[in-house]
Amino acid sequence: MSLESMLSLLSLESPSPEGSIELKTLVFKPKTPKSQVPVPVIVVAQSTTATAAPVIAKYAGVKEPRLANDELTTTFFGTPAKEFSLASLSNDHKDGKIKILIDSSIKDDSETTYILANSVAKLALTGSQLSGFLSVYSPVVVDFIAEASATPAAAPTKSAAPAAAASTNTAKLEDAKLIGVTVDKEADFSNWYSQILTKGEMLDYYDVSGCYILRPASYSIWEKITEWFDKRIKQDGVTNAYFPMFVSSKVLEKEKDHIEGFAPEVAWVTRAGSSELEEPIAIRPTSETVMYPYYAKWIRSHRDLPLKLNQWNSVVRWEFKHPQPFLRTREFLWQEGHTAHLTEAEADEQVKTILDLYAGVYEELLAVPVVKGKKTENEKFAGGLYTTTCESYIPTTGRGIQGATSHHLGQNFSKMFNISVENPLGSDHPKIFANQTSWGLSTRVIGVMVMVHSDNKGLVLPPRVAQHQVVIIPVGITNKTTKEVEDNLYSTCTALQAKLKAADVRVITDFRSNYSPGWRFSDAELKGIPVRLEVGPKDLATDSVLAVRRDNGAKTSISISEIETKIPELLEDIQSSLFKAAKEKFDTHRVIVDEWKDFVPTLNKKNLILAPYCDVPECEDDIKDSSSKQDNGEDMDVDEKAPSMGAKSLCIPYDQPPMKAGQKCIKCDRPAVHYTMFGRSY
Amino acid sequence: MSLESMLSLLSLESPSPEGSIELKTLVFKPKTPKSQVPVPVIVVAQSTTATAAPVIAKYAGVKEPRLANDELTTTFFGTPAKEFSLASLSNDHKDGKIKILIDSSIKDDSETTYILANSVAKLALTGSQLSGFLSVYSPVVVDFIAEASATPAAAPTKSAAPAAAASTNTAKLEDAKLIGVTVDKEADFSNWYSQILTKGEMLDYYDVSGCYILRPASYSIWEKITEWFDKRIKQDGVTNAYFPMFVSSKVLEKEKDHIEGFAPEVAWVTRAGSSELEEPIAIRPTSETVMYPYYAKWIRSHRDLPLKLNQWNSVVRWEFKHPQPFLRTREFLWQEGHTAHLTEAEADEQVKTILDLYAGVYEELLAVPVVKGKKTENEKFAGGLYTTTCESYIPTTGRGIQGATSHHLGQNFSKMFNISVENPLGSDHPKIFANQTSWGLSTRVIGVMVMVHSDNKGLVLPPRVAQHQVVIIPVGITNKTTKEVEDNLYSTCTALQAKLKAADVRVITDFRSNYSPGWRFSDAELKGIPVRLEVGPKDLATDSVLAVRRDNGAKTSISISEIETKIPELLEDIQSSLFKAAKEKFDTHRVIVDEWKDFVPTLNKKNLILAPYCDVPECEDDIKDSSSKQDNGEDMDVDEKAPSMGAKSLCIPYDQPPMKAGQKCIKCDRPAVHYTMFGRSY
Repeated sequence: MSLESMLSLLSLESPSPEGSIELKTLVFKPKTPKSQVPVPVIVVAQSTTATAAPVIAKYAGVKEPRLANDELTTTFFGTPAKEFSLASLSNDHKDGKIKILIDSSIKDDSETTYILANSVAKLALTGSQLSGFLSVYSPVVVDFIAEASATPAAAPTKSAAPAAAASTNTAKLEDAKLIGVTVDKEADFSNWYSQILTKGEMLDYYDVSGCYILRPASYSIWEKITEWFDKRIKQDGVTNAYFPMFVSSKVLEKEKDHIEGFAPEVAWVTRAGSSELEEPIAIRPTSETVMYPYYAKWIRSHRDLPLKLNQWNSVVRWEFKHPQPFLRTREFLWQEGHTAHLTEAEADEQVKTILDLYAGVYEELLAVPVVKGKKTENEKFAGGLYTTTCESYIPTTGRGIQGATSHHLGQNFSKMFNISVENPLGSDHPKIFANQTSWGLSTRVIGVMVMVHSDNKGLVLPPRVAQHQVVIIPVGITNKTTKEVEDNLYSTCTALQAKLKAADVRVITDFRSNYSPGWRFSDAELKGIPVRLEVGPKDLATDSVLAVRRDNGAKTSISISEIETKIPELLEDIQSSLFKAAKEKFDTHRVIVDEWKDFVPTLNKKNLILAPYCDVPECEDDIKDSSSKQDNGEDMDVDEKAPSMGAKSLCIPYDQPPMKAGQKCIKCDRPAVHYTMFGRSY
Repeated sequence: MSLESMLSLLSLESPSPEGSIELKTLVFKPKTPKSQVPVPVIVVAQSTTATAAPVIAKYAGVKEPRLANDELTTTFFGTPAKEFSLASLSNDHKDGKIKILIDSSIKDDSETTYILANSVAKLALTGSQLSGFLSVYSPVVVDFIAEASATPAAAPTKSAAPAAAASTNTAKLEDAKLIGVTVDKEADFSNWYSQILTKGEMLDYYDVSGCYILRPASYSIWEKITEWFDKRIKQDGVTNAYFPMFVSSKVLEKEKDHIEGFAPEVAWVTRAGSSELEEPIAIRPTSETVMYPYYAKWIRSHRDLPLKLNQWNSVVRWEFKHPQPFLRTREFLWQEGHTAHLTEAEADEQVKTILDLYAGVYEELLAVPVVKGKKTENEKFAGGLYTTTCESYIPTTGRGIQGATSHHLGQNFSKMFNISVENPLGSDHPKIFANQTSWGLSTRVIGVMVMVHSDNKGLVLPPRVAQHQVVIIPVGITNKTTKEVEDNLYSTCTALQAKLKAADVRVITDFRSNYSPGWRFSDAELKGIPVRLEVGPKDLATDSVLAVRRDNGAKTSISISEIETKIPELLEDIQSSLFKAAKEKFDTHRVIVDEWKDFVPTLNKKNLILAPYCDVPECEDDIKDSSSKQDNGEDMDVDEKAPSMGAKSLCIPYDQPPMKAGQKCIKCDRPAVHYTMFGRSY
């Protein structure tokens, strides 16, 4: 075929013939025992037709099909997932090596022109032509459209919103049980977490999977954190700036180790309006490579050091794992600080200063205890020298959770980006590459706080970060209450609010007379307001009010004349009680284990473990493998089945237990170097 | 050809053969008199080879070639720009209907396999095959690589960074002239603006076109603005939240009028890691359609109204027009407020409250005068009821600039998204759709401020927003100065700094002894620091310091004992002087014109015009056409040639001049309804 004829042939197909319909060809990987070769399932349907995983599972006779990754498509079809097309099929795939599901609307349609496209080619053909071509693979015909409408639309799926309180109507809301949390924290932690976040109005689920709406109740916590942290880094000489969210692929990929860690999760913009971009542009997953070319430009002399910039922004990491509000989201808010220093020691100091501030955010604001330490080589930030971390603990699941990390990048990035200055000793000395740090704290902190303190009644918020610290609710109004007493009650509540506001207490009133006081109590508990003030006619008679603590339900009568001092004291007491309770739990579940035989049993009791460890990366891999549930031939999903998960190293705590002389590593025969904290983790 | 053979043929080409090289085929539209049909220029080169517009212009013999839009490619080749390929060429294009430039490296290369791809097809062929195919179009052979290296790398281009001060070395920096602005504000406003922003360290150019880095000097101004505005909206009952940056196309496109305005500028994410997304996902250009589905869910009763949320975020509008720092950028920071109310009147009130705050940001913080008013029907927010605006004025260009807008959305969006409540009068009354408002203020304000106040010495910053309000510079140190005097001088400077800090003045010292005091004065002027304090041995003798104002250069001696009161007074005086000077300019260049014959001459004297106007949209179009430069057959670029631009309506000012009885519209015979402000604008 001549070039010209081929060109004209192709140009015939472009643009698509009028009335033609686009098809999708998706490759799914079913859950398969490790010992077996998976049988990919190829789904051919109109691009707008829903092809839900359960339907595919049913008709292909497989378990939990998921969209195949490049690894699978490359192995089976010699092409990355996005370039897969039916043209990739060959004789090798006959005889049950793959399964094909084809939508019944296409199967025998000889009228319509269908378009099959992947990222490199596009073909037009009829449904009958297509099924003729596919017949050698014995496709299964599925009526996807009927299947989709048969599935109840409200059925909750993993990535969609759980059935929300909002769908109950106002009348039903009179029953406090209905507005509250309907599952037990211990029995169904995952649903409990969803429910308290949505019913507590912290967050709402969103129609783009892995993205969530931060409602005022959670965003205001983030504001408290940013205010506290921002003030302190400014005192440390850091200034804020803003770098673009877009990164060219050239710049993004400059530091190889670094990008390797992020590449699978980078979101790419390829189109603007109706124009394809000449080069795809990435959305920052973090800003090292965004910022450092400019550090190289701005840092001309050792007098320009240290350069300490921070930005408050959002970053995107398109995780394909099961998303979880606050903990694993595709877009999240954070701060990222990036500093450059003349000496390694100054950078050490910076890393430590920030780590202490991170611990402060957790312990002083969120009342969540943390263990500070250093990450092992396996777990450090790719491309950096070492990583320090605050690690926290979720008692209900017994899992550790990384709180925030502060990295010493050494000179790796500065050499890559040429961030260098003349030696202060003179130009006959070698030039000096900057020592850099980077550090980030994200909205993840809010998720940790919720998981640690909240209970079956709803959120429990530490007073220092709660949007509303006190709610005033009038009580004891009956049919017999006189108008005068009632008016007096309301005006007292309003006066109390003003008094407390003047004392810098964040206080609201709940005068919603269409709801009973009991309903309003439950609502305030659901939302985690630290103190409820009940004001009734009897209280007024003694010039006092009843304060009820959210954390432990304790009630105290407070004289109105002392309200401006007693309430702030009470709030501080709640703050420290929450911290104390959480710390006690963490302390009793951080167990020193010196012998391997005790490791897994201790882990299974929802503990984190401090174990003597040799600091050899391979040994850490071994610990992880050996502590995961015995391989039962299933390709386990660690997110949903936490107990099967192996323990990984969380950090080498700065606060080390005394090591016995001659102590060996818990797993191997090498001498132990550090007590290292291991655990199942998020 | 059978389906199977075609599929296998295509699969051969995919992935590309090893060692093959990708080509690009770009279509350019040259500047062409309106009366003539343009001759598109097609450039064929390796995808990595730079093919600069000046080189294309030179070899194709055309003026200012620009990448062709869909309109041109559809007219000429029947295909949108992104689907154009050489396969789109036909006999119709012979005989000089198009011009083709082909890179010399490809021309006669029969060894290498080249890949020609567009969004629908991909072909592999040799250079000789390709040039054989193209020969009927008489292509011009260009050595693009040699041309690229012949062009000096430092030559500033419109979208790239201007030659920066940073490239001069430290020795040369001793000459104050070199660090300063090298072009005149009046003579070359565009380059002046670039220079003061980059040399003043407000901003740096970035390697993704249309995106800029906000350095601490500008970001700190944004922080001052956010702090001021955030506090005031919170007092007004607004709370902050955060909605995801991603929008599904289904949701984005729900309100038709609205999306029509934004669609051409929406950036689309189509890929994550190496996986194509099933559906492209948009990055928010604004959040009406992101937020309102949730307003519908959250607003259950009239007691939930008003709902007032705001978010501080960044949005993306992928403009294809000439980008300009702060004024027209592809990503920008802003706040967007969205409220829902029971009545239209409450929404009216909200719109006005916010507009007043916007005017406050300009006038009280940035010392930039504005005119408040309502947009005409032509200029209002698409999908809204009416739009209010603060309009400002750039004296140097005589152009108006939209400052910030506050929209009354009426019930249009609430009907679309079903944001409704039961009628408080009872369920037998019709349900009520919420009345909504939305309003935004962006980092554009910083650009306006810079354009209005700054001068040929650099930035001039209003003290209330300046990152550093005062710089203290020791002077008068010579070889003869004793160590004791010198030490005393430095310690006095440090003590002064502490005193001023205690008085809440943002003050720095400049002790860089490797630079002369004169150089440091220039540097402080370049950066726009409002007050420079010079402290020399002679001043110390009289216990005083010399204060030099950045805005007018005036010098005052201030007694050290009064420094904590005199400096804040001086700063406030500078703030009001800046506002007064700008207001005077704006007031004298806002001219009432009642007769059309005076309209264009007045406009050409860098004025905005207040003209009696009939409020009929078509008449506004007529005014715009009639006030643009007479058509000289050139396809004018309005960005670069402002005087050719027609005047559009900026607003109907709330502050109306008295209208004469029987006054007609300035352009037509209809009676005038309002004085309307017209002008050339950004």
